[in-house]
Amino acid sequence: MPIPEYTETGAAVRYHPPVGEPATIVTALRWDEGLELLDQRALPQRERWIPIAGVAAAVRAIRALTVRGAPAIGLAAAYALAEEVRRDPDLGRLRRAARRLAAARPTAADLAHAVAAVMAAVEAAPAAERFAQALAAARRLHAADAAACLAIGRQGAALFPGPVALLTHCNAGALATGGIGTALGIVRALHAEGRLARLYACEARPVLQGARLTAWEAGRDGIPVTLLADSAAASLLASGAVGGVVVGADRIAADGAVANKVGTYALALAAARHRVPFVVAAPTTTFDLACPSGAQIPIEQRDGEEVRRVRRTAIAPAGVDVYNPAFDVTPPELLTAIVSQRGVARPVTAATVQEIA
Amino acid sequence: MPIPEYTETGAAVRYHPPVGEPATIVTALRWDEGLELLDQRALPQRERWIPIAGVAAAVRAIRALTVRGAPAIGLAAAYALAEEVRRDPDLGRLRRAARRLAAARPTAADLAHAVAAVMAAVEAAPAAERFAQALAAARRLHAADAAACLAIGRQGAALFPGPVALLTHCNAGALATGGIGTALGIVRALHAEGRLARLYACEARPVLQGARLTAWEAGRDGIPVTLLADSAAASLLASGAVGGVVVGADRIAADGAVANKVGTYALALAAARHRVPFVVAAPTTTFDLACPSGAQIPIEQRDGEEVRRVRRTAIAPAGVDVYNPAFDVTPPELLTAIVSQRGVARPVTAATVQEIA
Repeated sequence: MPIPEYTETGAAVRYHPPVGEPATIVTALRWDEGLELLDQRALPQRERWIPIAGVAAAVRAIRALTVRGAPAIGLAAAYALAEEVRRDPDLGRLRRAARRLAAARPTAADLAHAVAAVMAAVEAAPAAERFAQALAAARRLHAADAAACLAIGRQGAALFPGPVALLTHCNAGALATGGIGTALGIVRALHAEGRLARLYACEARPVLQGARLTAWEAGRDGIPVTLLADSAAASLLASGAVGGVVVGADRIAADGAVANKVGTYALALAAARHRVPFVVAAPTTTFDLACPSGAQIPIEQRDGEEVRRVRRTAIAPAGVDVYNPAFDVTPPELLTAIVSQRGVARPVTAATVQEIA
Repeated sequence: MPIPEYTETGAAVRYHPPVGEPATIVTALRWDEGLELLDQRALPQRERWIPIAGVAAAVRAIRALTVRGAPAIGLAAAYALAEEVRRDPDLGRLRRAARRLAAARPTAADLAHAVAAVMAAVEAAPAAERFAQALAAARRLHAADAAACLAIGRQGAALFPGPVALLTHCNAGALATGGIGTALGIVRALHAEGRLARLYACEARPVLQGARLTAWEAGRDGIPVTLLADSAAASLLASGAVGGVVVGADRIAADGAVANKVGTYALALAAARHRVPFVVAAPTTTFDLACPSGAQIPIEQRDGEEVRRVRRTAIAPAGVDVYNPAFDVTPPELLTAIVSQRGVARPVTAATVQEIA
């Protein structure tokens, strides 16, 4: 019997099922003549692609969550910087643009990494070759991320011995990366092996990346998915219906503390209480070994309107005070494992994290 | 200096501030010529009162969450049953209506208690006096609940020695009771004593009773309130900004396990982790000593559209599978105290619960 598998071909990832034609899975961004982003604010109602003309447009798109997910943010920034080089290869101007880009969102570690990688290629090239070198650097990052997702998926799936139902938070899928996803890379690998009983997706208020993106991405690729309010996850874990929690990360500190979408920490507490394995999946670009522990990770506070409204619908008294951190920090002792393309840190300690970073 | 206080006068509760005129606080229901409910689906945008003609209309209103909160559901049912007696005092018909009413929502213990209390008054009266006796019974329940809220507020406030910021979930306020609220009764008592630093209100997806009701109720009565997504509560507790969590209950089992709005259990886990006192406030009508433990409490599963939509706005792929329990169960070992009008159970054990039930 043929084995279903995912393969990475340039910027696209294809799924080869045991029966039927291979299909290209959803992607967050693409470069044909220039950078285009799938507008994640419009999902699941509309699939709309937005051209990004350079760094200023990329900063706006990143802040507005048109593109989100730490790896995808990094790739969007890399291509946007290449676009900026094409417009004008002046180094002083590009360095300033790179600084603005790197500051667009404070928590995602991949963003700084991608900007630095493209700028290194630009700085090393003569003016006439800078665009080609920048684009090549962005494409290398993209291909590396797609390959990392495949490796994470394979190794993460191996952590679960039999058929399993998994719970995830937010969207750490194809829409958050340049490949099959990190947490959803594990989900896709299990699904391809016929071992995924079901994916439970927390909706991830306030921006609802779980309801809008994960439920859509999973459904589109034929993965059986059940949606729940974030507040229902603890009772789902208590019920015994879930055999593992898999999430992505926005930054991983040297001690293994993980900054991820707000709500991750509460899931980890509930998973620990009910002895459900809790696995964090992230490419090496998400690791920040210069950051000693979770307390040093900057946590972005976002506009209260994200909580006061759902899309255009007001759900609270106008102008009410709001506490709206975009991320929280889960301490290493609550994690069962961290998976990168380089391996599995288990148990999660400074030493095991360093090995896979 | 005058002491601010709340007093209960018939069906209304007045707040007497140290300076200025007393004011009547918000109420969930009223009876002048007949039963009217404040339509909680329309808040905070509109204050709309809906007349309830009898039991069938009350069952629809209870199921639709026009009125919600275990004590308020019980009072709405009591008055609706009185209305039904006025229409036709036939006992067989009333018994059938009472059964339908008691089954309108499975988790709230107060509902069965209120229906039984009114039916006992009806059964004991000759036909010509049944309506008067039923209405008198409903009014006694209402006055008892308002008095219970005042007693709960006073005793609950005494659990917090100094100025304190509290976190609450869903709405256990005036809108959920016949008085100043249970959890919000504690908040109001602290506020009246000048000891409330701030109230943090979780929004309580999927129906958003925290965002729509608690934020509105608190703001209307001058209580400083900050709204947050349910998923942000664990990091708020980790930050040290909160000195206590206060919630209501829909049913309390004999061992002290508490069924309350889904999300309560996750809050209790996070509060325990950060050693923040976790207090449940409920009148004796919420206790169900016939129910030995949390595992025996029936948990209502509600329609998936509550999660797929926020009001009329779709936030997920149409028809996606949904897990939507309305409540969860928090085990007694995670609770610091349960407060009823009869006293404080601390620590929470079968013995201490029995004393205050």
